[in-house]
Amino acid sequence: MLSTERVERRLAAILAADVVGYSRLMGADEEGTLAALKAIRRELADPKIAEHRGRIVKTTGDGLLAEFASVVDAVRYAVELQRAMVARNADVPPERRIEFHIGINLGDIIIDEGDIHGDGVNVAARLEALAEPGGICVSRVVRDQVRDRLEIAFEDMGEQQVKNIARPVRVHRIRLGEKRLRPESRQPRPHRSPCPTNRRSRCCPSPI
Amino acid sequence: MLSTERVERRLAAILAADVVGYSRLMGADEEGTLAALKAIRRELADPKIAEHRGRIVKTTGDGLLAEFASVVDAVRYAVELQRAMVARNADVPPERRIEFHIGINLGDIIIDEGDIHGDGVNVAARLEALAEPGGICVSRVVRDQVRDRLEIAFEDMGEQQVKNIARPVRVHRIRLGEKRLRPESRQPRPHRSPCPTNRRSRCCPSPI
Repeated sequence: MLSTERVERRLAAILAADVVGYSRLMGADEEGTLAALKAIRRELADPKIAEHRGRIVKTTGDGLLAEFASVVDAVRYAVELQRAMVARNADVPPERRIEFHIGINLGDIIIDEGDIHGDGVNVAARLEALAEPGGICVSRVVRDQVRDRLEIAFEDMGEQQVKNIARPVRVHRIRLGEKRLRPESRQPRPHRSPCPTNRRSRCCPSPI
Repeated sequence: MLSTERVERRLAAILAADVVGYSRLMGADEEGTLAALKAIRRELADPKIAEHRGRIVKTTGDGLLAEFASVVDAVRYAVELQRAMVARNADVPPERRIEFHIGINLGDIIIDEGDIHGDGVNVAARLEALAEPGGICVSRVVRDQVRDRLEIAFEDMGEQQVKNIARPVRVHRIRLGEKRLRPESRQPRPHRSPCPTNRRSRCCPSPI
């Protein structure tokens, strides 16, 4: 009546991450970059995912796709990871620093043999592509679900048209440097122009 | 760092349902009403919840609180239940008809020993109270997650201030009588005034 076929669906917070300037880093030092990435995953990224009850869906050389049962847990994970990376990079020369872009979305995704599919996943990858190095971009529904539950500040980046997604996506950037003092709704910030969608040269889907 | 304590959280679609005019029905025919409700649960409501991978969290005489891993499944369940009730009521005299109000919300809820808590649950109960007899009201995030996935039409009821919830809730009514012809965003409907929040005499939380 309502659909031609039934597939297994599940609400999830979807987190997409990739390494800033992966090709450049690999071009400069292939073995060193791989070793550094492996150490970050082993010492930081993977244990923290488990701690926040997340699951790594898949990884590639420079990317990671994870899902969390709770969007609060997903955002906590991303914030803790990005803050830990700042500390970790403090003594590393800028040209060798490993930084992540992170995007988080919430969606009613399709589960198929451990993999996840659907617009909710695609939007997470687009949000990741909009994040600045070391930054986190989330969709409005993520912001709405966590803003009264975590002491973090958001900045509205406006609506963004993203590739292969029919509806524009309202993007919010997490302001990692500051704690929110009061609920966001009572403390309006001046609206900044959205980050340019073509800021990064990559225009293809994130290879994760 | 981000929270004083960690609790178990999970994204879920929360469905609250209650019987229209329960006290009136019970006043008129206590045993007959209870028997009719029991039959509806046994023959219709409970098997359909299982079919849509939902879980009954709790019930009272006139109410039901359920959670679904997928919001698409939750909305499918509600639409099928309300349509089945119309068919079931066709031969019943109006004063003896059993009808449901249904509200559906999506939230990052707290799980505690099988029970669920949080704003997401409270909002579902408020949405239920705004639904007309035989009707379904959902929050905007529910509408956004299902509108491109199910052939059902929504009507925007505007923002509603609901009891004990700080932020206004954007309410959408499901138009059960009609299938959507085209995606809602390309087919704007005239905005109707919201259903009056005090239309129903009950002002206390739904006893479910």
